[in-house]
Amino acid sequence: MHSDEQKRLAIIQSIFKAQFSEKTPMRLVSSTDDADDCAVYDLPGNLSLVVGMDFVRGTKFTLFQEGYLDYFDVGYYLVVANLSDIAAMGATPTGLTTVIRYPATLEDADFIQIVEGIKEAASVYKTPIVGGDIGGYDEMVLAATAFGIAEQGKYFRRRGTVEGDILCVTGTLGLPATALVYFTDAKKEGFALSQEEEKLLINSWQRPVARIAEGSILAKLGVVHACQDVSDGAKATIEQLGQASTIAFKIYENSLPIHSITAKVAAFLQVDPVALACSASVDFHLMFTISPNELEATQTALRDEGYELHAIGQAITNAETSCLVRMDGSESTVPGTAWKQQSGNVAQIILGK
Amino acid sequence: MHSDEQKRLAIIQSIFKAQFSEKTPMRLVSSTDDADDCAVYDLPGNLSLVVGMDFVRGTKFTLFQEGYLDYFDVGYYLVVANLSDIAAMGATPTGLTTVIRYPATLEDADFIQIVEGIKEAASVYKTPIVGGDIGGYDEMVLAATAFGIAEQGKYFRRRGTVEGDILCVTGTLGLPATALVYFTDAKKEGFALSQEEEKLLINSWQRPVARIAEGSILAKLGVVHACQDVSDGAKATIEQLGQASTIAFKIYENSLPIHSITAKVAAFLQVDPVALACSASVDFHLMFTISPNELEATQTALRDEGYELHAIGQAITNAETSCLVRMDGSESTVPGTAWKQQSGNVAQIILGK
Repeated sequence: MHSDEQKRLAIIQSIFKAQFSEKTPMRLVSSTDDADDCAVYDLPGNLSLVVGMDFVRGTKFTLFQEGYLDYFDVGYYLVVANLSDIAAMGATPTGLTTVIRYPATLEDADFIQIVEGIKEAASVYKTPIVGGDIGGYDEMVLAATAFGIAEQGKYFRRRGTVEGDILCVTGTLGLPATALVYFTDAKKEGFALSQEEEKLLINSWQRPVARIAEGSILAKLGVVHACQDVSDGAKATIEQLGQASTIAFKIYENSLPIHSITAKVAAFLQVDPVALACSASVDFHLMFTISPNELEATQTALRDEGYELHAIGQAITNAETSCLVRMDGSESTVPGTAWKQQSGNVAQIILGK
Repeated sequence: MHSDEQKRLAIIQSIFKAQFSEKTPMRLVSSTDDADDCAVYDLPGNLSLVVGMDFVRGTKFTLFQEGYLDYFDVGYYLVVANLSDIAAMGATPTGLTTVIRYPATLEDADFIQIVEGIKEAASVYKTPIVGGDIGGYDEMVLAATAFGIAEQGKYFRRRGTVEGDILCVTGTLGLPATALVYFTDAKKEGFALSQEEEKLLINSWQRPVARIAEGSILAKLGVVHACQDVSDGAKATIEQLGQASTIAFKIYENSLPIHSITAKVAAFLQVDPVALACSASVDFHLMFTISPNELEATQTALRDEGYELHAIGQAITNAETSCLVRMDGSESTVPGTAWKQQSGNVAQIILGK
């Protein structure tokens, strides 16, 4: 039997369920049982430690294989993907450890580029690389652990949404997915975006952004009920946030922040732009819930610092699953496809081919 | 250019050298610059956090490929390899995160065995698995991050050895290396150990031991000047401990804890038993230095709790490199081969073939 990732995650959760309690000064308060983006320990002195760990496919990214990303980019990406988990907790990153394993064929120059990319991203987020593991292996392996701190009780979790809460997101949804289908499909079929538009698409993979700043502003406001980073597309994130609080969301098409490039590419490929925007996409934006009466102040606080907030829906209890309200008033399930890491070509999956 | 692991480690250290200082309540006190087994942060309240990260080859271990280890064993090994870094710091483990990536061909039953092995080892060391990453990849990937706590200033580092210090080790050297050359070479050439002896050799890979208990006793005594776990063979550990303190060691053949099985296998293969005992071997014992006048009390403290201490040499300053004093009084460099992860068959390398 070869269960999919969701089922194997459930297997892991059932095996690791209810491990021994902690007797040390580090008290475990969120673990695998909770499926938060990070584990959380309360430390002495009103501090909490958050810890997350992510592997990235790196040199196996389709856009690396197609020549749009280089070794520096995948090193940079490794750091951001891991820091995004810290951002999703509303925490401040304090360090990273990395695993870099490489096939015997990897040139020193390429190895150095990976490490330089890691260093550059670490430097942008002022988070030191404090250790790790290097060595040879059959395939490239890039993984990292990020840790950070938050005030006790001030970090975000996936659960905590209540009926009527507004679902918000810190920016545009679906650009990385758009990049994928554009470069592997639309462009090859003759559709051409401008150089600037292409650059913007590539940039979503080359220089992704961990929303540490937004998370920090939100943590200070103390308004967030639940939060998660969008690392598997908006559809998956909406569903997971719902499941964590046994609640559903009503999403409004006209409030979804979909970039005009996504709309253009979707139009050429004759797919639903909402499906493209909500499919497997490593947007790394924060998706979170707040009370309706906190919306204006939260929006102002983020905008005053140059960041975005888009209210895209509302938590409801009279539905089993989240739904999308189209501009014409019709309702459907949220369209899009979650990432399936084992199932071949992601672009083809997004396009339903 | 394809530099070896040592050179690439040097590349990483130079790129990551002197990163920004920490302004958070987590103050970084040991990082990549230090090459300790873990990074160390001082936390509020007299605590230090130690963090280490290790990838293991797992299903690519020669003895897995040859059918002597199973999926449960490599899961178990992953945890112990990571906890051994915590032991090397004299710290108490408080959690682990794991990466489990698998090829599409991995059966659910095998996946479950890996996770059960991880859980069993975590349970033995009362250390919860608090999070991580799973998913598909081209090859099996097993990596983890372990973290733990120590009293501030009480954890061990690699540097700190002074002239005259006694070099000690918590147990037998070279059994895993012996297992490797026995099963891949000697046994195939017709040499047969007893079933019990074979079991003991396999057990060194199946149920390795992280020396958390010994590290904890030593930390309480407060006698350790420098420490490292033996994860790359005794020769490499002796050399690294020497380099960290710009010192050398004089090792005495007659005090090296070499198992009779190692001696037997070496005799059959016509190799130097000291070379086999000191070669690439994941013994996971702690190798550390203490003052001569602390030796007796330290030995007693460990033995009273059922643990071992072997004094194997002494720190000297009048030599460039560490040396081995043979039973006949002759001196040579310490024999053996360090692990070279990229260079093919480790057993053949150990045997100098």
